[in-house]
Amino acid sequence: MPTYKAPVSDTVFLLNDVFNYANYANAPGFSEAPIDIVEAVLSEGAKFVEEVVQPLNRVGDIEGCKRHDDGSVTTPKGFKEAYKALVDGGWVGLAGDPAYGGQGLPVFLAVLFSEYGYGANIAFSMYPGLTNGAVAALTVHGSDELKARYLPKMTTGEWTGTMCLTEPHCGTDLGLIKTRAVPEPDGSYAITGQKIFISAGEHDLADNIVHLVLARIEGAPAGVKGISLFLVPKFLPSADGGVGERNGVMCGSIEHKMGIHGNTTAVLNFDGAKGWLVGEQHRGLPAMFVMMNGARLGVAVQGLGVSEVAYQNAAAYAKERRQGRSLKGPVEPDKPADLLLVHPDVRRMLLEVRAFNEGARALLVWIALTQDEARHAPDEKARQAADDRLGLMTPVLKGVFTDYGFANAVKAQQVLGGHGYIAEWGMEQFVRDARIAMIYEGANGVQALDLVARKLPKDGSRALMAFLGEVAQFLAAEKGDAALAPYLGGLQAALGHLQQASLWLSRNGVADPNNAGAASTDYMHLFGLTALGYMWARVVKAVLARQGKGESNPALDAKLILAKFFSERMLPETAAHLARLSAGASTLMALPAEAF
Amino acid sequence: MPTYKAPVSDTVFLLNDVFNYANYANAPGFSEAPIDIVEAVLSEGAKFVEEVVQPLNRVGDIEGCKRHDDGSVTTPKGFKEAYKALVDGGWVGLAGDPAYGGQGLPVFLAVLFSEYGYGANIAFSMYPGLTNGAVAALTVHGSDELKARYLPKMTTGEWTGTMCLTEPHCGTDLGLIKTRAVPEPDGSYAITGQKIFISAGEHDLADNIVHLVLARIEGAPAGVKGISLFLVPKFLPSADGGVGERNGVMCGSIEHKMGIHGNTTAVLNFDGAKGWLVGEQHRGLPAMFVMMNGARLGVAVQGLGVSEVAYQNAAAYAKERRQGRSLKGPVEPDKPADLLLVHPDVRRMLLEVRAFNEGARALLVWIALTQDEARHAPDEKARQAADDRLGLMTPVLKGVFTDYGFANAVKAQQVLGGHGYIAEWGMEQFVRDARIAMIYEGANGVQALDLVARKLPKDGSRALMAFLGEVAQFLAAEKGDAALAPYLGGLQAALGHLQQASLWLSRNGVADPNNAGAASTDYMHLFGLTALGYMWARVVKAVLARQGKGESNPALDAKLILAKFFSERMLPETAAHLARLSAGASTLMALPAEAF
Repeated sequence: MPTYKAPVSDTVFLLNDVFNYANYANAPGFSEAPIDIVEAVLSEGAKFVEEVVQPLNRVGDIEGCKRHDDGSVTTPKGFKEAYKALVDGGWVGLAGDPAYGGQGLPVFLAVLFSEYGYGANIAFSMYPGLTNGAVAALTVHGSDELKARYLPKMTTGEWTGTMCLTEPHCGTDLGLIKTRAVPEPDGSYAITGQKIFISAGEHDLADNIVHLVLARIEGAPAGVKGISLFLVPKFLPSADGGVGERNGVMCGSIEHKMGIHGNTTAVLNFDGAKGWLVGEQHRGLPAMFVMMNGARLGVAVQGLGVSEVAYQNAAAYAKERRQGRSLKGPVEPDKPADLLLVHPDVRRMLLEVRAFNEGARALLVWIALTQDEARHAPDEKARQAADDRLGLMTPVLKGVFTDYGFANAVKAQQVLGGHGYIAEWGMEQFVRDARIAMIYEGANGVQALDLVARKLPKDGSRALMAFLGEVAQFLAAEKGDAALAPYLGGLQAALGHLQQASLWLSRNGVADPNNAGAASTDYMHLFGLTALGYMWARVVKAVLARQGKGESNPALDAKLILAKFFSERMLPETAAHLARLSAGASTLMALPAEAF
Repeated sequence: MPTYKAPVSDTVFLLNDVFNYANYANAPGFSEAPIDIVEAVLSEGAKFVEEVVQPLNRVGDIEGCKRHDDGSVTTPKGFKEAYKALVDGGWVGLAGDPAYGGQGLPVFLAVLFSEYGYGANIAFSMYPGLTNGAVAALTVHGSDELKARYLPKMTTGEWTGTMCLTEPHCGTDLGLIKTRAVPEPDGSYAITGQKIFISAGEHDLADNIVHLVLARIEGAPAGVKGISLFLVPKFLPSADGGVGERNGVMCGSIEHKMGIHGNTTAVLNFDGAKGWLVGEQHRGLPAMFVMMNGARLGVAVQGLGVSEVAYQNAAAYAKERRQGRSLKGPVEPDKPADLLLVHPDVRRMLLEVRAFNEGARALLVWIALTQDEARHAPDEKARQAADDRLGLMTPVLKGVFTDYGFANAVKAQQVLGGHGYIAEWGMEQFVRDARIAMIYEGANGVQALDLVARKLPKDGSRALMAFLGEVAQFLAAEKGDAALAPYLGGLQAALGHLQQASLWLSRNGVADPNNAGAASTDYMHLFGLTALGYMWARVVKAVLARQGKGESNPALDAKLILAKFFSERMLPETAAHLARLSAGASTLMALPAEAF
């Protein structure tokens, strides 16, 4: 049975040493969360997920969710109690508005805590994850009346949320949505249509489920400009704030799927269900994007979370399992065999996973802090810069973290050999659970296209220029540091490749947009590797500063080795990305459709 | 529900045009199989797997194998009838010795046919696959008496075979085997011990199961030099050649695993079971390696087979599913959306899979022919050269084909978006089934180590030199061909990287064997890409020759596009492999065990 230990000390090290959290302490939005509070919350949260959430991971996979003939769904044994404890402990509303019962802590803290939840149990942690996303969308776009009625229950997690976009004939292409909304005399709408793949779409964890539904008001323009967003509760709220009459939305079936069995993936049938408009008519997509952007970051965190837990269990196995001898001769001749860890290729697999995890956690901390800065930074320019970075990095984190999350779960599984393929060891569940993150909330190809076609050109490439400038400035500023220098060569080369790739895109992507599409996935990964390389350089700087003060501990030494590994073994891929994307679209587009 | 069409015309094109099968026609071992026979057998075989074997793929996944309290195992519905038809059709014994009821066709034909079986249904096709491996081991190492008693039933597939190596505490490290063999007065041995992960270890498809078991004779030397190979039947043969008394080997349980549910993965308990020595005492490992080398090639073919079927189904989806518009504007404005195929990144995924498949099939045809040459070539030198190539290429094909097989199943699944994650679509089963091939018959890290530590240095690197020389000679011979030249640049660069990497290994791998281990996986993939690049160059040459004769058809044009794609988009990875492996072992080995 796999185990999980939330990496609290790494998170705190990154906040303190790499991102100088002390500088934020009195900034607007952060004042409720001095570092000792942050650390206490993370430690308590870690304890909660380790003790309550993680033990349900495997039972959730085995039992799955069960739909009954009346359309109700039972979650796996223990989920209901654990969810209640999550709500009661205030964990769902960690960053929620205190006016609605939230804890009022900064968003970054909820994001960093969410890594632990996903590390422990993705299927379970999706329930609060989606709820938080729905709260965010309602907060920005909901009417005061809707907010007053729903946010008190949703902020705490007593009621959960969903996002209902996909229909049988359309996932990515939301312009094709057919679900209809007909205005009712009381100002509400009657919603009719079928939504599929609705995560947390039906369950027994909460008294009510609040669906945010994209639909087309009768007579609306065709395409994405005719889509509106509606709030459709499972039960209509009663006058006292509880639940009243059952609404006309039913779970028609639940999907049999590869993983995340503990989370219901529902087909929802809306049959004249009562709904209320969220935001303006025909402006549903921008409103939903508030939820989707948060959800995309959430999915990125799933990639990191599963990669971390997969690493921990593979490393534990490699430190215990004895098989073969070191290539240099027996290390422990008195034992029947040496530990797996003596084999360089086993170390390679483990270090590839871990060097990603710790670099990615740094990137996550940075972008999580950026979310709060984008809201609360005192001057407009700083808010804009933060918003730029957040917009640019959201598809990168979603696409790159989830691609690595899956690949890393596979690598960790490989360390266990045959046992990795056997269900009882839990590694194959990580692989199956990690797989969905590359698909939902916009498949990773869609993220890559969002990056190259939308985020890069936006505002004259302001966000891209700021990022490239920041990394270049860091390298220029640190080049005199003899201790740091050996760690910067790989990043310097990666930055050069990213600059060339960006130039290639700006030259060729406009002339033929297929060039941008053909380059998109390689560009996204090149970007991600460069950003991770930048994070590793900043981590090394922080470690050297500590060591410069005479501090010495194995955790700091390990960071230096991992940074070097990342540079030697993972950054070389940037050149391959550049070579591939520079090939352009012509060969890709040459094969006629019928020849596929 | 996924479908499958065996790629017969591609196989035949490769045989005829790329490998000039006509040249083999009168060679020893090939004379029974002129090309029209080959084509007829492949076409009939294709029909059989498409109609009989493929329809059982999903039911096999859903039902799995069921063990009953008496230790017997029932395979999924339809498997028994299909297996009987496979035996009755002579498909198991395609390349079997006619003296034992085989068809006497060359081995390459059985190998090429096996791609179709694995493409249709991996779990099912493992049963005959393992049987053929056991037949090969018995043919080389069995006594005349054992051969006479078992081969008639096993060659036809009426009885099936297994290989019993792994025990709970040892998989890769067979020196740790504990299963004991005690000599009996009648010349047999009493075998006692537990074997795990035994594929096809118990089932209801055949009247008898013949286990080839590694065990230690009492008093044998420690380690791998004290291991012997035994034949242990489930039922002792009766005097009339049928089955007699039940032997003391029982299926204790079957594993719950990620995929290949239709194949039993058994824990086998040997309790004084009667067994007979195969080959010499304490020489069990070399005897088992006859089976393992064949099995490794068989597993490589699984990687190709699943990659092909995954491609076919993803391509079919992309040619039917409409989502979004071409980046250059609507291609079919009268339809609600364009086909997925208009999106460059969707094409990228499909072409990456297909360019592998067709290159890998060429490599498979070459190595399959090599197997027959190694046996039958008229002069010793040609046999040796073939044997060298086979030994060198076996770990490359096993490691590279199965890594790609899995990665390609994942890519093909991605093309389907959310539907790829849903069981009914069948793509997620391909992913789960493909995963085991990276692990069993020696995990891919073991293949990589076999390549760099055993196959490369063997006989003064004769096999490596022959391969490098052959590719260099091809490039030199063809450099004047203006039509071919544009396709050769990528291969020239890849060959250079492989030469450098080989030099690096010979310089650094001996000084510190950990350097060889640290380089092994990158080296194996660099080798594989170069070999695939060489195959693509030969395919292009064959296509240009046909086109030079005035022939023009879309299949030939597609090959040229795929070759270019492979060169532009897949060969650039060789530089990254070289960069990574040149980093050496020092950083890898620096992290102390307790810091993992």
